[in-house]
Amino acid sequence: MAGRKAAMVVEKNKKVVLRRHVTGFPTEEDMEITVDTIELGVPAGLTAVLIKNLYLSCDPWMRGRMSKHEDGATVPASDFVIGEAMVNFGVGKVVGSTHPEFTAGDLVWGLSGWEEYTLVTQPESLHKIKHTELPLSYYTGVLGMPGLTAYGGFTHVARPKKGDFVYVSAASGAVGQIVGQLAKIAGCYVVGSAGSDEKVSLLKTKFGFDDAFNYKSESDLGAALKRCLPDGIDIYFDNVGGATLDAALLHMRHGGRVAACGMISQYNLEERDGHGLRNLFYIISNAIRVEGFTALDWFHLYARFEEEMARYIKEGKVVVVEDVAEGIESAPAALIGLFSGKNVGKQLVAIARA
Amino acid sequence: MAGRKAAMVVEKNKKVVLRRHVTGFPTEEDMEITVDTIELGVPAGLTAVLIKNLYLSCDPWMRGRMSKHEDGATVPASDFVIGEAMVNFGVGKVVGSTHPEFTAGDLVWGLSGWEEYTLVTQPESLHKIKHTELPLSYYTGVLGMPGLTAYGGFTHVARPKKGDFVYVSAASGAVGQIVGQLAKIAGCYVVGSAGSDEKVSLLKTKFGFDDAFNYKSESDLGAALKRCLPDGIDIYFDNVGGATLDAALLHMRHGGRVAACGMISQYNLEERDGHGLRNLFYIISNAIRVEGFTALDWFHLYARFEEEMARYIKEGKVVVVEDVAEGIESAPAALIGLFSGKNVGKQLVAIARA
Repeated sequence: MAGRKAAMVVEKNKKVVLRRHVTGFPTEEDMEITVDTIELGVPAGLTAVLIKNLYLSCDPWMRGRMSKHEDGATVPASDFVIGEAMVNFGVGKVVGSTHPEFTAGDLVWGLSGWEEYTLVTQPESLHKIKHTELPLSYYTGVLGMPGLTAYGGFTHVARPKKGDFVYVSAASGAVGQIVGQLAKIAGCYVVGSAGSDEKVSLLKTKFGFDDAFNYKSESDLGAALKRCLPDGIDIYFDNVGGATLDAALLHMRHGGRVAACGMISQYNLEERDGHGLRNLFYIISNAIRVEGFTALDWFHLYARFEEEMARYIKEGKVVVVEDVAEGIESAPAALIGLFSGKNVGKQLVAIARA
Repeated sequence: MAGRKAAMVVEKNKKVVLRRHVTGFPTEEDMEITVDTIELGVPAGLTAVLIKNLYLSCDPWMRGRMSKHEDGATVPASDFVIGEAMVNFGVGKVVGSTHPEFTAGDLVWGLSGWEEYTLVTQPESLHKIKHTELPLSYYTGVLGMPGLTAYGGFTHVARPKKGDFVYVSAASGAVGQIVGQLAKIAGCYVVGSAGSDEKVSLLKTKFGFDDAFNYKSESDLGAALKRCLPDGIDIYFDNVGGATLDAALLHMRHGGRVAACGMISQYNLEERDGHGLRNLFYIISNAIRVEGFTALDWFHLYARFEEEMARYIKEGKVVVVEDVAEGIESAPAALIGLFSGKNVGKQLVAIARA
């Protein structure tokens, strides 16, 4: 195929680019929508896949990549490049491919750009979607990175036992809602916290949490935990860090596990403050294990996870709530909304449906 | 034996009692030496052991028990009672016993009072000393609670692999010096920090650390770690918490383990501040496991530990440095000295030698 010179169709390509690196709380103005053009195929001599993006995923971890880090800093992923499309896991359809495993028409999920079309030059990061009978958008959430995060973190880090008392923060979010339902499947008693009465109601009525509270209307987080979990916490699945982590540490049982998944309370601080972390000593006295992870640690489990989770969904054991923004123009606001808890459930952006 | 009414010898019993509960940094004046009398036997009808205390142990964990905690607070051990002898692990000789497992003349270690004689009413907490050919005082340190802490924490929590890069803080102390030597036995590269050039020299020349630094003469802890461990840290054995923990978190390798053993930097703060803990997020992004423990978690391993450690000592693979204060009157100063790092090696108090 090398040297092939077939004329390719050229399309406009709308994208969300980072205008400037962010400190503190991000705003929509930190991003902008731009348009350029793209050839709808893979350039000659390149092994790559050209994807039409269908669903973009809004995830808190993107916040870290919006900042400028010093050269040599230890960061989980490189900083976004100013003026280029932002990058995250998403769902797309293959339009062209020179990679032997992908052909036009394939539905895939993986790292892609926040734009209408992306030339993926490392196609090994893409996964072909097996369960096309389920909503494709689920591959931005329950069947994608957040679902894998919940599954790996809860199953392999928290290691639940039947009857364990489980607490999940940001419990109605993309990861939290899955953790709560996995906890029920594992026979645990599970309590969630979220930032509105609407979300608390969702936790109890939709996701089957045994109890839940609105952390914004509690004057004392520790008292709320004591009320909902009077015998203490075996597993705290932490999506928020900060003061919530501190309150949970005080209420952990001996040998308790903190699955450290996210610290969204800290991402927009100019300087992470460690504020309120007065209870770290209980890690020692109560033999608590605090263990961190990201989905990247569990991709080797993906095939097994996908089958197990798809089965739970079909059996009705796991249900999903999505918050879908329409059109790529709505992506900046959808992303920003994550950090004030505007989203109800998994936040994603539909930019095309086929 | 019940109803026995043999007249018992009555002895003077000098003791270290807590005068008041402590906030902030403790002083010698928070304790006082008092004298009362004790019958040198077990009162009729009681199953107990009367011990002549030989060596008292000074350990950082005693600090927590010197404070007054609110009723219902989660604490690792109850507050010391004002006016009563303080309590810690120590070495003694049985003078009288109504417990079938102990007889006069037995050498034991376990929880006892800071006094010349203690009536131990829960003798199951006492261990008979097997290796009487080794210095008895070792049972306050390398063969006692601190040794078991080092062994359990390093072997079972940190789980070393050959070639791991290990960092130990408070490295010349009772626990740190053992951890460093266990790390060498396990084939690790081990770096220690301590608070004086004398201690740093001890680490390198006596305990076989590969490298060491004086944290008091480093303006940037992170830079010191980067210099000594340029490829990062696999295991951080944390005895101090606070800013040192924070610096270590930034330099942990992916999948690194923090064995959380002590937070001596925090014990004397009026309010634990979490100061400097800006790097907790690396727990997530680098999949770090922070796991706490105390010796209490490992007592089921004691018999195996005692044999293994005694063998290391006899083979010269583990050496010990003790800081021995003479006489019970010196105990308050010896204990206070721990918190300013005055001790060089395991701090103990010899109050009798047989």
